[in-house]
This record gives sequence, C-alpha cells and structure tokens, in this order.
Amino acid sequence: MDIHDLARRLQDGDRRALSRAITLVESSRADHRKAAAELLGRLADPRRDTIRIGLSGTPGVGKSTFIERLGLALTGAGHRVAVLAVDPSSTRSGGSILGDKTRMERLARDPAAFIRPSPSQTELGGVARRTREAIALVEAAGFRTVIVETVGVGQSETLVSRMTDIFALLLAPGGGDSLQGVKRGIMEIADLILVNKADGAMKEQAEATRTDYAGALRLMRGREGDAPGFPKALTVSALAETGIAEAWEEIAALDRHRRTSGARDRIRAGQNRHWFEEAVRHGLMAHLTSDPATAARMEALGDAVAEGTEAPAAAAERLLRDLLSPGEEAR
Amino acid sequence: MDIHDLARRLQDGDRRALSRAITLVESSRADHRKAAAELLGRLADPRRDTIRIGLSGTPGVGKSTFIERLGLALTGAGHRVAVLAVDPSSTRSGGSILGDKTRMERLARDPAAFIRPSPSQTELGGVARRTREAIALVEAAGFRTVIVETVGVGQSETLVSRMTDIFALLLAPGGGDSLQGVKRGIMEIADLILVNKADGAMKEQAEATRTDYAGALRLMRGREGDAPGFPKALTVSALAETGIAEAWEEIAALDRHRRTSGARDRIRAGQNRHWFEEAVRHGLMAHLTSDPATAARMEALGDAVAEGTEAPAAAAERLLRDLLSPGEEAR
Repeated sequence: MDIHDLARRLQDGDRRALSRAITLVESSRADHRKAAAELLGRLADPRRDTIRIGLSGTPGVGKSTFIERLGLALTGAGHRVAVLAVDPSSTRSGGSILGDKTRMERLARDPAAFIRPSPSQTELGGVARRTREAIALVEAAGFRTVIVETVGVGQSETLVSRMTDIFALLLAPGGGDSLQGVKRGIMEIADLILVNKADGAMKEQAEATRTDYAGALRLMRGREGDAPGFPKALTVSALAETGIAEAWEEIAALDRHRRTSGARDRIRAGQNRHWFEEAVRHGLMAHLTSDPATAARMEALGDAVAEGTEAPAAAAERLLRDLLSPGEEAR
Repeated sequence: MDIHDLARRLQDGDRRALSRAITLVESSRADHRKAAAELLGRLADPRRDTIRIGLSGTPGVGKSTFIERLGLALTGAGHRVAVLAVDPSSTRSGGSILGDKTRMERLARDPAAFIRPSPSQTELGGVARRTREAIALVEAAGFRTVIVETVGVGQSETLVSRMTDIFALLLAPGGGDSLQGVKRGIMEIADLILVNKADGAMKEQAEATRTDYAGALRLMRGREGDAPGFPKALTVSALAETGIAEAWEEIAALDRHRRTSGARDRIRAGQNRHWFEEAVRHGLMAHLTSDPATAARMEALGDAVAEGTEAPAAAAERLLRDLLSPGEEAR
C-alpha cells in the first residue's frame, strides 16, 4: 500500500481514499496498524482549524433527524461536515447504530457531508481509538465540522466527550420525573442539553422539561472560566426544523469563547494525553499476549487463578514482577 | 498489623474484623495492598459453598426495599446474608448508592446480615477489584449469600455480572415502550427480570410489562445447557411483600441446576481468569507511574502528545518499545 499516495489523495478530498484510510485505521492487523501510524503521522497538523461536536441521545429521541437537519443547515452555509459514530452496542452481540445509512438519507447524498458508520467491535477501548483516528482523517480530508454520535449506553458518552470539543445531549420531553432519566455523570459532561420534539402537542411539555434541566444545570458548577450561561438547555424540533440554527449558534459561541480563552487548546491537549495513556495501557496488554513466553506464563497463571488456587491480584503481581524485572530471573 | 490474627477473628465471625478487613482491601496504599494480598491468600478457599447474586435497577425502582425484604426472608430462614454495592457514580463527583444505611434499616440491624456501602472511588476498575475482594472476605466470614447491588449506569452492570453467579434486573412497570428503557446488553446478561411494584393500581401494568419482557427474552438465546425457562421474567412487590419467596426460589433453582451441571464452576473460573487479566493490566500501568525513569519518559512523551507534535498511538508504541526491550537500548 502506498501511504504517501493515499495521504495525498485523501488531502485532495478523494472520498474513496478517505473511506479506505478509515478502513485501514479500523483494522487491528499488525501491518495495517503500522501503515495507519505512518498515515496519521503524515497527516498530523495540530494547528488545523476544526470543531468536534459530541452528540448523545437514547434510541428514539430523534438523533438521526436532528443530525441530518443540522448537517444540511451547515453544508448549506458552506461547511463540510463529517458524521462518525461510537456504538458501544453489547459485549455479546455487536451491532452498529449507523449501520443503516438510510437513517440520514439526504445528508448521506450531500457531497459536502461524509457519514461513516461505527465499526463493529466488541471492545470499547478499540472503538475509541478507531474513532479518534477517523476524526483525524476526516479533518485532514477537509471536513472541518465533525459530529460524533453515540447512544447513552455504557461508557460511550464519556469516551465521546473525551474526543470532542463540545458535548451535547439530545433528550425527549419527559414527565415530572424526567430528570431521573439522565445519568448524573452525563449532566456533568454536557455543554448543551437539547430537548427535542418541541412541536405540536409536545411543545409545552418540551418547554417544561427544558426548564427542569435548566434549573438542574444551574445547581451544577460550570467549568471555570467557561462562556457565561453554559451549560445551557434549549428546545429544538428536528421534525419541524425549529431551534436548529439557535442550537448551532450556541455551539459556535461556546467554541469561539473557548478558542479565545485558550480553553479549547487545553482541552484538546488533555484529551491527547489521556488517549496516549490509554494507548500505552492497550499496548502493554497486546505485548503480553503476543510474546510467546509471556503469553505462556500468563496462560499458566490464568489456569491457576481459574481453578481458585491463586487469587487474581496475587497472580497478576507475580507475573508483573517477572516481566518487569527480567534480569533478576532466568527466563 | 497482625494479618494472622485479623484472618482468625474474621473467620470467627467478628464483624469489626470483617469491616476492618474490607477497609484494608479498599485501600490503595502499597503496604495495605501487600497486607490485603496476604489476608486474601490466607482466606482463599475455592470449595466454599456460597451464592453470589448481582442485582441492578435504576434509582427509584425500589431496589433497597426489595433487597431488605429478600434479605430478611433469607435471614429468617437461617441464611447469613451480605449486601455489597458497586457504585460507578460520576467520574467528576464521586458518591455512594449505599452511603445511607437507613435505606435498609431493619436489615442493617439484623445480626445475620452485613451491609457494606460502596467505596467512594473514581475509577471503576478499582471499585471492581475492591468489591470482588470484599466478596471473598464476607464469604470467609460465613456470609454464604452475597448480594451485590448496582445501578444501571456505565459499565457497572457488566462488572457486577462478572463477579456474581446470577444476575437479576429489577424494573418498574412501564408504558407501551417499556422495553426501550432497558439497555440491550443488560437484557443479555440478566438471568431474571423482576418487575417490581406489582401492587395496587400498578398491578395490571406490572403484569403487562412482565409479559412484554418475557416475550423479548424468548427472542434471545439462553445460555446453552442452562436451566430450562431461563432467563425468566417475574412480577414482585417489595412493598406488599409478594413474589419475594418466588423470586428467591427461581434464583435458588437456577443455582442448583448450574451447580449440578458444572456450569457454576465454569462461570466462576472464567470470571477469575478475567479479573486476573484485569489485575495484570492495572498493575502494568501502576508500574509505569511508579518507576521514576519510566514515569519521566511517559511524562515527556505525554507532553509531546498534548502539544500535538506526536500522535497518541505512535508515542505509546515508542514508550513500549523502550520499556519492553530494555536490553536493546542504553538506559
């Protein structure tokens, strides 16, 4: 594979090259990983001017419709928009929230947009790495606005908030106990809460829900030095196409504020450091299972642990002692 | 600290010794970790006859009342019951679902029961290790029935299902779209779905919800060779104290079946192996940050990554190359 050529074509905006590059970073084959690292190294540009938006919402809340409307509004205004997905799905069955491209039919046909389904994957850590690398690729291909979609399952929201600049949560209007439906941790990472379906018979209820969330958000401390008024709660209607422009204006305003204050760069720097540490963790484990001697030792200790003759923590400690002080023991 | 004495007192059923031992395994101080490993080694007994039940449910579903009623029914029948909690809480704020012991006031006063709140902890992996070790301790202290409570947040349910024999999900009666409220992954790990609040005005709705879940469960493949009819959906009322004995009988029946078939031992062996691998992963990272030379190198590479001059994955690879092949490079 000619990485130089792939990088050039991708930077020229060749969509097939972009798709191929994402498939490459999604692979866990060793030679693909090596090629992917080279490609990402070539395309790296810390000064590239982009905005990364995380969007979460449970199934049925209208996420696809909202993203399609927002995406079309943005491409209509001259932006180039990429939509990626992080799907934690289930540890047993796998799956993909964006597997069905017909969910955003019009946006999928828009030449200024690029939609990529979540890779099928059982390990969430792996999905995170792949998605981060896909973000780098779509940005290098000239998509300056990147929307990373996820569902409110497992750690996926935390992961997505750690690879995006701004995190928005899309909700449906709820009853009186609507606040119970949102995980506490998520309220704390959300910059924007968007109550969807503020149309027709639901309009009043959506406004009431928005008021509830706005009240709850006021009780929570905003990020120090962040734009005043954030985190914020708004109503939107993806179906009636109301509130979309306003939601975008809030996102853009927060982004401007954070760029000016330097917070955006600090956030990205912290995220990069976090993902580096994750990659180290992941690589260490990969080493354990690829080095035959270590893998055999791990297997034997694992057997003893499975039988119950060794405690997991104690066995792990013995393995690590041997592995990390190899000089002290004949191998 | 005299570990031998602590182990002896704990095995004699001394509750203060048990509490102290759990506090010890909850600590991450190096000397405490060492003492904890010695204690757990002393108390280990793979042939101890216990049952571990995971129970999840969102806040407000009646989890505490249900556990109290079940716990009192069991202690009334001569069992000794321990209740532990895994609280993923939020990555920013911390917290504890069982911090308030008054939630299970009667059970907390029962001498045949032992209730331990979840440790405040930001890292979920750490909570898992501590809870597993607390399970070993309460079992060594003679509590043969262990209930591990959690809330439906993040990965906590998967974690709890990986340290228990049987996993039950407590739900409230829902409307027509009740099935949407349960994460797909959770349906797949649940052995038993308990629809609570099957009393008074809610009774009919609870039965309808149970029927919905029973139908959904039929669509999902049970574990091969598992007791026929499982996973199963039942109605209960913690408040009216109906269905509790029936729920316990189902749990006990499934446990008997799995003991006889050998599945229970296979499940526990697989879990032990999983937690061993987790401990290895965790220990490797701890090493990285405790060895000064490695920590400094990691810090420097982290800085480069934060600035954007190195890609996270590439930097991680360089660090690991140096760390794991120390002979090839002057240190």
